[in-house]
Amino acid sequence: MIESGPGSWSGAIAPDWDIVGNANGGYLLALAGRAMAAEAGRQDVTTITAHFLRPGQEGPVSVDAEVVKAGRRFSTVRGNVVADKPLISALGTFTDLSESPADERAMIVGERPSFPAPDRCVRVEAGETFPPKFMANVDLRLHPDDNFYEAPSGELLMRGWLKLINDEPWDSIGLLLASDSFPPTIFNSTIGVAWVPTLELTVHVRTRPAPGWLQCHFSSRFVSEGFVEEDGLMWDSTGTLVAQSRQLSLLPRTR
Amino acid sequence: MIESGPGSWSGAIAPDWDIVGNANGGYLLALAGRAMAAEAGRQDVTTITAHFLRPGQEGPVSVDAEVVKAGRRFSTVRGNVVADKPLISALGTFTDLSESPADERAMIVGERPSFPAPDRCVRVEAGETFPPKFMANVDLRLHPDDNFYEAPSGELLMRGWLKLINDEPWDSIGLLLASDSFPPTIFNSTIGVAWVPTLELTVHVRTRPAPGWLQCHFSSRFVSEGFVEEDGLMWDSTGTLVAQSRQLSLLPRTR
Repeated sequence: MIESGPGSWSGAIAPDWDIVGNANGGYLLALAGRAMAAEAGRQDVTTITAHFLRPGQEGPVSVDAEVVKAGRRFSTVRGNVVADKPLISALGTFTDLSESPADERAMIVGERPSFPAPDRCVRVEAGETFPPKFMANVDLRLHPDDNFYEAPSGELLMRGWLKLINDEPWDSIGLLLASDSFPPTIFNSTIGVAWVPTLELTVHVRTRPAPGWLQCHFSSRFVSEGFVEEDGLMWDSTGTLVAQSRQLSLLPRTR
Repeated sequence: MIESGPGSWSGAIAPDWDIVGNANGGYLLALAGRAMAAEAGRQDVTTITAHFLRPGQEGPVSVDAEVVKAGRRFSTVRGNVVADKPLISALGTFTDLSESPADERAMIVGERPSFPAPDRCVRVEAGETFPPKFMANVDLRLHPDDNFYEAPSGELLMRGWLKLINDEPWDSIGLLLASDSFPPTIFNSTIGVAWVPTLELTVHVRTRPAPGWLQCHFSSRFVSEGFVEEDGLMWDSTGTLVAQSRQLSLLPRTR
């Protein structure tokens, strides 16, 4: 993103980050996050939420970013990613995570599940429509038990490993992309839903990720009233929890 | 909240909604939500996120609300609650939940735990400082296993029942208050933390709540890198999941 005026950043939705023509939601969130972090003058995101307003297509976009509060440790910024109209609206808090010494006494860490190694998982290769084109930009290995491309498991889980291609290292804002790179958990249900538009996505980043594979665990518990939540957990290659995510999606009406 | 100009709503932080002088975060979020819903011309909130910038005290506040997108079914609004400076910044999507027919085929519902009945739980009564004053505005019954006022359980759980006083019925925006009314789960840890400032709170509302007790379940899994998340589940008196929440809090540095 390039600063194009006070609180205005310009950039573009690159080709091949789409799902049947519409840019991946995590990609749009990362794009917003980069501009908002730059506006804040902070390198890392701590927590960011986006509401998805309209699908985004390849081509130029701008981000209008406004610092609501610049604090000593955290800065809060709101921003819209705009093509001709706003595509997403975001609210984020940014910091420098290298300045966050962990309080070791306070470490209580939920279980990290054990997955088959990446080479024993199923690589999802980009297709023309499905799997989506943006799979060419990541190396995504799906847990063999969650490989709905063969058959839905019946469990609302999507687990596996994720890397950027060419071993590009992760940074905190890259985790925003990771949080939305796996297929929706609902694809492993037997409901027969082929598409779930995301209303809202929130990502909490705990610390900067180490290079290499991210271990990713997405699960849903409640499909009700026409909505489904999806909770994500991401660990880096050292086994550290680096991010949590939650999104709220809409079940397309079927009657 | 009263409309005081285009996109401007005025109101007040009422007395006795505080914790040692600072207004409860869920109260501030509900205040933002009421003004933002009014600005959108929609009755219900679907998803809202607030970032907490400064503590709020009793007295007049305004909410600056801006509709980012007014859609057919959903409207997205951003807003700041401002005293002399912004106290919270919020982003929400509003709708009319009475228009949301559930797709019964798509109901997959996680387990609802069984709790002792409200009269077998521990009523938390307002104190001068602790328990906080705002407990006089709600009837909060804590699960006896989570009663840290006697001794921390060692489990990062806070469970129980919640009603508004005088049997005032819940509405979807009232759930924003409910999502932050229980003591923090960390008070049941043995870490010895007495205060955890909330950075961010997101609430997803599934449907309008029935009158009566809300059954509330708050849990945390990861206390690491100086942060802790807290996940909430709220069921109404008919046993329907009405809302989910997640907040990210900061552990005060102890060294």
